[in-house]
Amino acid sequence: MARVVVDVMLKPEILDPQGRAVQGALGRLGFTGVTDVRQGKQFVIEVEGEITDERREQLHVIAGELLCNPVIEDFILIVEEDQ
Amino acid sequence: MARVVVDVMLKPEILDPQGRAVQGALGRLGFTGVTDVRQGKQFVIEVEGEITDERREQLHVIAGELLCNPVIEDFILIVEEDQ
Repeated sequence: MARVVVDVMLKPEILDPQGRAVQGALGRLGFTGVTDVRQGKQFVIEVEGEITDERREQLHVIAGELLCNPVIEDFILIVEEDQ
Repeated sequence: MARVVVDVMLKPEILDPQGRAVQGALGRLGFTGVTDVRQGKQFVIEVEGEITDERREQLHVIAGELLCNPVIEDFILIVEEDQ
């Protein structure tokens, strides 16, 4: 068993109105000193068997096409092999 | 400067239709062996200054009220202090 975590985040140059709303709300709730908030998506994928280099490459391609919009989003893929 | 990452995920007992849709799509794209997919939200909060225990506690309370719906969601809060 392995767990693959894909974090999808808007590219830094793309405005993030949801993050901006959270930033405003944090200030109103009394938490000061926040300089930026970005909101993204996280996918946690449980996979049977080992993640070979080939499967990792396959996941990378799929994540870039299925899980994120490469025009406006970046993603990070982390593989956590189970002990 | 510190970075606070809040990962919000549906509780395990709550159905996740978006995750289920991704799981189906992964299979159709030829990536087999996926046993479960969960989709969540991720907030990346950039904060000035140090995160003291008091501020961390304050963030915990706010995250539980503002960033997640505690009826159906769990959250994890990770503080990454800048070197």
